[in-house]
Amino acid sequence: MATEKLAGFRERIRSELDRAVDFWLKHSHDKVYGGFFTCIGRDGKVYDELKYVWLQGRQVWMYCRLYRTVERFHKDEILEAAKSGGEFLRRFAWVPSAGSMGKCAFSLTRDGQAVKVQRTIFSECFYVMAMDELARVTGDREMQVHAETVMDQLVHWVRVDPSGLGRPQLPGDLPVNSLAVPMMLLCLVEQLAEGRVDVADKYRELGSWCVQQILQHVQRDGTAILESVSNDGKELPGCQGRLQNPGHALEAGWFLLQYAVQHGDKELQRIAVDKFMEIPFRTGWDQDHGGIFYFLDVDGLCPTQLEWSMKLWWPHCEALVAFLMAYSLSREPTLLDRFTQVYDYTFSHFPDKEHGEWFGYLTRQGSVELDFKGGPFKGFFHVPRCLYMCERLLDSLLAAACDS
Amino acid sequence: MATEKLAGFRERIRSELDRAVDFWLKHSHDKVYGGFFTCIGRDGKVYDELKYVWLQGRQVWMYCRLYRTVERFHKDEILEAAKSGGEFLRRFAWVPSAGSMGKCAFSLTRDGQAVKVQRTIFSECFYVMAMDELARVTGDREMQVHAETVMDQLVHWVRVDPSGLGRPQLPGDLPVNSLAVPMMLLCLVEQLAEGRVDVADKYRELGSWCVQQILQHVQRDGTAILESVSNDGKELPGCQGRLQNPGHALEAGWFLLQYAVQHGDKELQRIAVDKFMEIPFRTGWDQDHGGIFYFLDVDGLCPTQLEWSMKLWWPHCEALVAFLMAYSLSREPTLLDRFTQVYDYTFSHFPDKEHGEWFGYLTRQGSVELDFKGGPFKGFFHVPRCLYMCERLLDSLLAAACDS
Repeated sequence: MATEKLAGFRERIRSELDRAVDFWLKHSHDKVYGGFFTCIGRDGKVYDELKYVWLQGRQVWMYCRLYRTVERFHKDEILEAAKSGGEFLRRFAWVPSAGSMGKCAFSLTRDGQAVKVQRTIFSECFYVMAMDELARVTGDREMQVHAETVMDQLVHWVRVDPSGLGRPQLPGDLPVNSLAVPMMLLCLVEQLAEGRVDVADKYRELGSWCVQQILQHVQRDGTAILESVSNDGKELPGCQGRLQNPGHALEAGWFLLQYAVQHGDKELQRIAVDKFMEIPFRTGWDQDHGGIFYFLDVDGLCPTQLEWSMKLWWPHCEALVAFLMAYSLSREPTLLDRFTQVYDYTFSHFPDKEHGEWFGYLTRQGSVELDFKGGPFKGFFHVPRCLYMCERLLDSLLAAACDS
Repeated sequence: MATEKLAGFRERIRSELDRAVDFWLKHSHDKVYGGFFTCIGRDGKVYDELKYVWLQGRQVWMYCRLYRTVERFHKDEILEAAKSGGEFLRRFAWVPSAGSMGKCAFSLTRDGQAVKVQRTIFSECFYVMAMDELARVTGDREMQVHAETVMDQLVHWVRVDPSGLGRPQLPGDLPVNSLAVPMMLLCLVEQLAEGRVDVADKYRELGSWCVQQILQHVQRDGTAILESVSNDGKELPGCQGRLQNPGHALEAGWFLLQYAVQHGDKELQRIAVDKFMEIPFRTGWDQDHGGIFYFLDVDGLCPTQLEWSMKLWWPHCEALVAFLMAYSLSREPTLLDRFTQVYDYTFSHFPDKEHGEWFGYLTRQGSVELDFKGGPFKGFFHVPRCLYMCERLLDSLLAAACDS
């Protein structure tokens, strides 16, 4: 019975992944200037030509990963699109600044002129992901070195001197450990180190530091995951300190779980599941309407984010990966129940039956409130990464079931 | 009959204004560090001690305006609170920067340390409003001169050289005429010039320039008000170009109407009503659930703002002022109908019967989604300014009805 259920999941997930890939292959490629359109309406029409660098980088990465590891996506069309995106990024993403390598833009015009630069590390992070994965499929050693150079700049900004990010130093603006930062760096360590002993050695201490920084977000005697804490792991005052982002905590959960498995760290494996999956699921699941809230206040106050109660696609993607990965390792039935609960909500709410791909933004009650497929923060990333990872996890589970 | 209706409006509006003033007098004053708490929960409890500079400035302005022009608010308690807020701003709002007067912070810690500085003009704008109105009630001539000095810096940033705002110059980031900027400057011209012939002369050309800049937002052959246009008054590409913010257009409407009346400009008066009130009302009113949408796309596409369909308190405040002011001038019954329609929605949805003051953020369907009374962008400003202006307009209408 369990096997049948898993096979059912896999069939749906596989077909959803095929539909998502088809959608972006068909609608997102800019054949004139290179790179990808990312603002794509429900039916595939481009509604804004701005190119968001996070999403360019993520799409290059995702195409390359699919090309490299999934036989049915090992197609020239996908490789060529990834190369075009990579070239666009290398030519246009960088905004020079005096005395350093510069910053990656946040958004570019269609023809590659910088529109906006954020004072954070994330454009560069997705750039590194893209370049490293692209180097893996093309064998371009210079590109791999380039990715590492940018990585080292990132680490310098985060751990040594943030002044290159361009934020003014203000007396009331104390340094914050934002969950996103060590998560991103840990993700990049995984990316760069895969299958490379020397690189793994180089970033071993960084990986361990990232894990410790992530664990600082377990607060309130182990009962809550808070999105931002002080640099020495204390709760911050006010709304910022009380903020919970359940989807983000769940994503951190599967990052930690992967790391724990690689390092044979049973204790970390337990923390990843008990703290970074169970807690955000318990507190983040909407008991009235189903789905995972975007933001919550740990004291039950009203968050100040206007969109706090909306149901976004990506926390559900992260939850699916987290619970299926956790189940694969422990075969604990409650973890499969969690996965099933999220799966049922996700697949009955987000996919667009008519045009393919997923809606991204639902009301608290679960109706579609923004109907585009791609926007400033939704591209070819969370949906295909989730489906890709779940398909692989289900492949392994089903193969093991056959063997037994 | 009409008189009875107007009297009914006035009674409710007057009592709502009293309740709003009571709420902020009771809950927002920081008696230790001075200034105002602005993050205030439904029941009046402070949920975050950060002090937002926009809201500090707005509260000082509103207190002083009420103190100066409404007999029942001419109370020491209000004056002292305004002075405390003004002193807090003068001491702490400014963040020094090399070679200029610096920038006003966006947010401060409770004890006045700068947390964040925006690269826009709005903190300084509300600072000027506060200082000028405070100078009017205290007779502090030096403070009035200070307000003008900051005003002249603002004008320099907007019309001569924006580099002091700290935004990097990027090749794809073309200059934009954002409706907010000429609106704010026009508001400040009105503020500074009131009852002062020399200041009115000084800023006459600026006022006229602001009006022209605002009129550039009438687009699509006069059928739409767009939030951002190019500096030469053309529609911008993409989402940014298509964005409509009906509440903002309505606010611009009554700013223009005031200006038109002062300058005896009948044509501008017509444009203010026909373009800046009728169009946003017609396009912005939710035919299904009532209330005014926050954002819309002029082509009917989905906006990318997650909160686009929410009903916020302030667009309704601006609509009330706009239609009542327009009705007062023309006595056109359809304008009173518009006012009544907005009034009915507003007073049946936003006021909190239990604790006083208004909720700020409703779902598209009209239920309260964020229940605080004060937050990073909601303070003692839109609600009392609307009620204060409507009360005065109704006073005049009712006095005229008695005379006739």
